[in-house]
Order: sequence, then C-alpha cells, then structure tokens
Amino acid sequence: MNEPVAAEAHRFPALVYRRFTPGWRRPWPNRQSGDNGGIPGPTIRAEVGDRVLVHFKNLDAANRWPHSMHFHAFRYAPGSDGAFIPHVSGRGGAVPYGQSFTYELLALPDSHGVWPYHDHSHFMHESIMAGMYGTIVITRPQDPKPDREFVVYFAAHGGMDTINGRAFIGNTPTFKARVGELVQWDVLTIGDLFHTFHIHGHRWMRNGIPVDSEDLGPSSTRLVRFREEEPGTWYYHCHVESHMRNGMIGLYRVTA
Amino acid sequence: MNEPVAAEAHRFPALVYRRFTPGWRRPWPNRQSGDNGGIPGPTIRAEVGDRVLVHFKNLDAANRWPHSMHFHAFRYAPGSDGAFIPHVSGRGGAVPYGQSFTYELLALPDSHGVWPYHDHSHFMHESIMAGMYGTIVITRPQDPKPDREFVVYFAAHGGMDTINGRAFIGNTPTFKARVGELVQWDVLTIGDLFHTFHIHGHRWMRNGIPVDSEDLGPSSTRLVRFREEEPGTWYYHCHVESHMRNGMIGLYRVTA
Amino acid sequence: MNEPVAAEAHRFPALVYRRFTPGWRRPWPNRQSGDNGGIPGPTIRAEVGDRVLVHFKNLDAANRWPHSMHFHAFRYAPGSDGAFIPHVSGRGGAVPYGQSFTYELLALPDSHGVWPYHDHSHFMHESIMAGMYGTIVITRPQDPKPDREFVVYFAAHGGMDTINGRAFIGNTPTFKARVGELVQWDVLTIGDLFHTFHIHGHRWMRNGIPVDSEDLGPSSTRLVRFREEEPGTWYYHCHVESHMRNGMIGLYRVTA
Repeated sequence: MNEPVAAEAHRFPALVYRRFTPGWRRPWPNRQSGDNGGIPGPTIRAEVGDRVLVHFKNLDAANRWPHSMHFHAFRYAPGSDGAFIPHVSGRGGAVPYGQSFTYELLALPDSHGVWPYHDHSHFMHESIMAGMYGTIVITRPQDPKPDREFVVYFAAHGGMDTINGRAFIGNTPTFKARVGELVQWDVLTIGDLFHTFHIHGHRWMRNGIPVDSEDLGPSSTRLVRFREEEPGTWYYHCHVESHMRNGMIGLYRVTA
Repeated sequence: MNEPVAAEAHRFPALVYRRFTPGWRRPWPNRQSGDNGGIPGPTIRAEVGDRVLVHFKNLDAANRWPHSMHFHAFRYAPGSDGAFIPHVSGRGGAVPYGQSFTYELLALPDSHGVWPYHDHSHFMHESIMAGMYGTIVITRPQDPKPDREFVVYFAAHGGMDTINGRAFIGNTPTFKARVGELVQWDVLTIGDLFHTFHIHGHRWMRNGIPVDSEDLGPSSTRLVRFREEEPGTWYYHCHVESHMRNGMIGLYRVTA
Repeated sequence: MNEPVAAEAHRFPALVYRRFTPGWRRPWPNRQSGDNGGIPGPTIRAEVGDRVLVHFKNLDAANRWPHSMHFHAFRYAPGSDGAFIPHVSGRGGAVPYGQSFTYELLALPDSHGVWPYHDHSHFMHESIMAGMYGTIVITRPQDPKPDREFVVYFAAHGGMDTINGRAFIGNTPTFKARVGELVQWDVLTIGDLFHTFHIHGHRWMRNGIPVDSEDLGPSSTRLVRFREEEPGTWYYHCHVESHMRNGMIGLYRVTA
C-alpha cells in the first residue's frame, strides 16, 4: 500500500467534462478536488421539480470524436437522452466536434438520490475510459443538508483502480470532517468492474440492517449518510483485495 | 455498438428446453421471441398454492448426455430437486437420453416472484452454456397483472454477452409498450458473470429508493414493474461497459 | 462435481488465526469444523453493549511478517483499527513477530449482525490469501437464538474456490439440521471475487421479497435465518458456475 509507483507507467490521455462560464468563455474556477478539475466532471445539482438545461459543447480537439451526455434519473424527451442509436437518435446522441447541444431535463419526485452521467455516443467506451463521467445529486426539500459531502467514484484508468481518477493514498482524495457533523458519501462506479465500498471504524443502516460495506456494479450508486462520531484517521477503500492493492484506497480524517 | 459482427465467428451448438404437446408429440407453437423458440426455455407460470407437474424427456440426440431440471422457488421432495448428487440423488438428477421423468413441485406462499430453472446434472455447466435454462414466474392473487411482461435473461454464449441468447441490437429482443400500460420486466442471469440492468429514461423503486439500474449475480433475479410514462425509443442494457460492447443491449419502443 | 482432484496440485501454505488458552499456553480445543481448526479463524461472539478485548500474539515463525487484526462492526479508537497506515497507525497495525497487542473493541447498538475480521498489516494481501480471516457475530438480546448456526466463508485458496478454506464436496462442511429447528447461516466472503450464495430446496425473505440466493462482494455478509421445513440432502453453493465447478459447493442434510 505504500510502495512508490512510477508515474510514467501509468500516464493516460484524459478526456473530461468541465464546467464553463456562460458562452463557454473560460473554465469555471476549480475550488476543490473533483469540483471542476478533471475526473469526475462537475457535479450537477438539482432539486425535485427543477427543470435543468445543460449546454454542452464538444471541445475534443485531440480526437475530434462526436460526444454526448447521457443523464440518469431525470425525465427527458428521447432527443435529450444523449445515447447514440443508429438511425434513431438526433444530434444530442452525437454532438460533432466544435458544435453544441442543449439537453433539457426534468427532476421528478422520484428522481432524488445520487446518479451518474456519462458519454453515450459512438465512442462512449473510449470516452468513459478517458474520464467522461460525472455525478448528479438530486435532493428533496425534506432531505437533511449534510455538513460534508464527498464524491467517491470507482473506475479504472491507466491500468490502475481509481477513486475520482486517482490511485493510491496521497493521490486519492483525503476527506475531512469533524465529530458531530452530518457526513454524506455519494458513492458511484462506472466501467467494467464491481466494487465494495468500505469505511474503517464506521457503520450505517441499509434496509434496516447495519452495514459497513456496500456492493456496487457499474452505474449503481449509494448515498451513505451518518452523524460523525469516530475521531481518527481512517481508510476508506474498495474491499476487493486486488483493487485496493492497485490503488483504490484513500484517507478520511475526523477531528474532535 | 453498430458494427457488423461476422456470424460465423460466433456460432455455438445450442441445447435448449422446449415445450411439447402432451406425450411429447410435437413442439408447442412458438408465438413470440423467447416463448418457445430457444434461449431461454419456455416460461413456467404458476400461482401460489399450485401443484405443478413438469414432464421432462431427454431428447439430446447430439450428445446423449444425461440431463435434468432444477427449479428454484418451489417446494419439492429431494427426488424432484433435479441436482445430481453422487450416490444420493435419484433419476431426477440425471435423466438418461431417451428417458423421461416427472418433477413434482409446489408453489408456496413465499414462492412468488421471478426465478430461474436450469440443468443441474453431471454436465450442467456445458448444458447451461449451451442454453439449458429458463424462467419461472409465480404470482399471488393480489399481484397486479401487467399489460406487458418482458423476460431479460443475461448470460454468455459463443463468446458474446447475450440477452435471451442473442447479442447486439436487432438480434436481441426489441420490446414494445404504450404509455399508460403496466410494464413488468423479469430480469434474470445465469453463468459466471455479474450484470447491471439499466433502462434509459426510466426509474423505479427498490427498497424505498428510486433506482434505474440493478446489480445481479448468477441466479439472482429482479422483478421490475412500472406504469409507462416515457414515450420514445430507449436502450435497455447491461451497464458493465464490456458486456454492453459485446452485445448485451437491446431496444425498447414506447408509443403514445 | 465428483471428479477426483490431485491434492498435490492444490497445496498452499496456510497462515491462520487460532484461539489459545490465557497466556497463549496452548491452542484452545478444536471442537468442530471451522471452530478453531484453521480457515476461517475462531468466531468472535459478542452482544451489543459488550466491551471486547482481543489479545493477539504474532506467532508467524515461517515468515516473520508483521501481522494485525482489523475488526468490522465494532467501535474502537484508531489505535485498535488494526490497519497499517504509514506514519499514522501505531503498533496495532503491524504487530512484529513474537510480540503481542491488545485490541479494545465496543459493540454498539448498531453493531449487530455478521461481520469479518482479517489481517490489515503491510502483508495483508498475502496473509488473507493464506487464511488470516474470521467471523464476528454480534447479537441483540431480542435476536432469536438459532438451534443451528453455520459459517459459510467464500474465498479462494490454492487455485480453488473455497468454502471455509476447503473445496469440493466431502472437503467442504456438510451441515446438519432437523425439521423444526431454527437455522442460521452466517455467510461471508473475502478476497477478489463476487459470489452468490444459494441453498437448494429453501427460500427466505430479504427486504420483503422471497429469495433463494444472495449476491455478496468481498467483505459483504448475509445473515440468513429460517425455520427448517425441508427434509433431504441438499446442495448449498456459490451460483457462479465457474466457482461451483472449482470447488465452491457443499452438502446440507436435514432429517425429519
């Protein structure tokens, strides 16, 4: 777990979603890890009942592939599905390089929770492997507002098993909280593999039973929420041994 | 997703369950995809409280292997378990070529749901890989009767990742429904792999939480039921990227 | 399923937790399969509210590696977490050969259930692969006391897919019960793989729905409990075909 990894051996060309100021003039300021800095893309937030417009512009100068955005959870007309279906889907399923498209989404009463979005165009597999995915968080008015919210995105990049596109402690996010805070973990996964999310020294309820690990297949998500009571420095990681060993582990620091 | 696949490279010898008229005189008419046409075998339907007799005849002239039927969900005496246990199981666990056996099953109050049946004889692995599996649907009087019911069986055949024994759009079933209909998806999986069932543009409840994908290991099942409200042409697929890319995807057409 | 396996081809050096008499004078008597005989280690039992002290001594003369114990479910100070974190964890995360350490644990009201413990030191992967894992069972006063309790631990050793460190019928545990008894299965898994736990001829409730198989990723657990009503000799096994074929199957004998 603490052996040095040669960075050269693990370089990969990333392709990511970034949030821009109106008119795509310049990238939105990147305030914290995962906020707008790469993998995953910026978190899209909405409340049930919201109508959401996502203005997407394909700036993939490196590959000049068509790209798209496919959103889970929301209601939308097929034109905003973002999946390329030969002879069926419109422009939203394959936005050409240099062009833009506006996706129209509606957050329904049963859209609440944590969900993925990702490329679903013709090159979706290559694009997802390069980083084109992100998080949607849809809340209800009655949902408790967490004091801390952490996005944990399991995937694989550059031959490593990654959390938010990074591998091994020090590269993966070190999350921080204080005793007494309401902490929310938005756990997602994408790609080919199944994962198990585990936090040391903690437990929470799932379907009326205490758990401290959650099984997730690709595109499945978990919203884990608890009142923090456990000061210390803890591991969070995927409990698949080979994934943990291959980078899928991070630190969580709780102060009193 | 839309690249042509050379059929020759993916041929495999199938071995399937088929429903016959009494006395195994002739195959039951095949009315629709998956009904009695191959993979999966014919769906066995019962209501809780039903006593079910399944008359099985081994017609495997190609291999002359013994075969069997193992049924999930039902109560039965060990003689009707259909699993070959050396020195323990009777004829039902290994019905020789050309012979027949009658399995006696009882649908209990807690047998309701969607379940697999499959070969469990000495050559069960080869037989399942060749297609010897099917669906059991057991209902309660109070269960809502769906207007549409679709069987989605995830497995692998001929080097492809398959839905109902078929791979890639156009080969996999194109399901159809109308807005306002009660739609039920009977989702099953068998073999070596874990899958994630996802439908575009839809969501449903699971344990009090909205979801749009379901993780399933071999022999696990999901009954997904919703009132249709989303007109359009949608993908349904396994969200494991490599499985989707290898054929595990189909179309769902909803008209207004 | 009944083919002979050459034992030589599957030997592996085991490294296990064993319970000793006070002062580590001699091993605790081994009364039944899995009790204190190897893989998994001895089951740690507690009731909610209990304070538990585990006195661990590293007797790994063969490798002289540091070792540890990491416990799920319990509350503990970081010093008793048992996970090696460079520059952070204390002696409990890496107990040197020949030395001892006492872990201090507290069973909280939400610690009830079945949980794993395992090595989490620098060589945790090698150690877990060699057998350094076990079961924690934490009960509440109101939990029904089973007449029979079986531990089923899915893992992989020596190239085989194992239950309690053993592979294939006759080596894996043959569990026994009588009609009318309350039977509890403590199902756990550790390592790299996902499994599906299935018992023939039985079904039980999970989240209000009858099931007869359970999907489990590494470190996930299931507590399966039912009143026995099905006399006979039954298989229990992982329903991943290749795992079952590679040893992950056993017998369950129910007498009237």
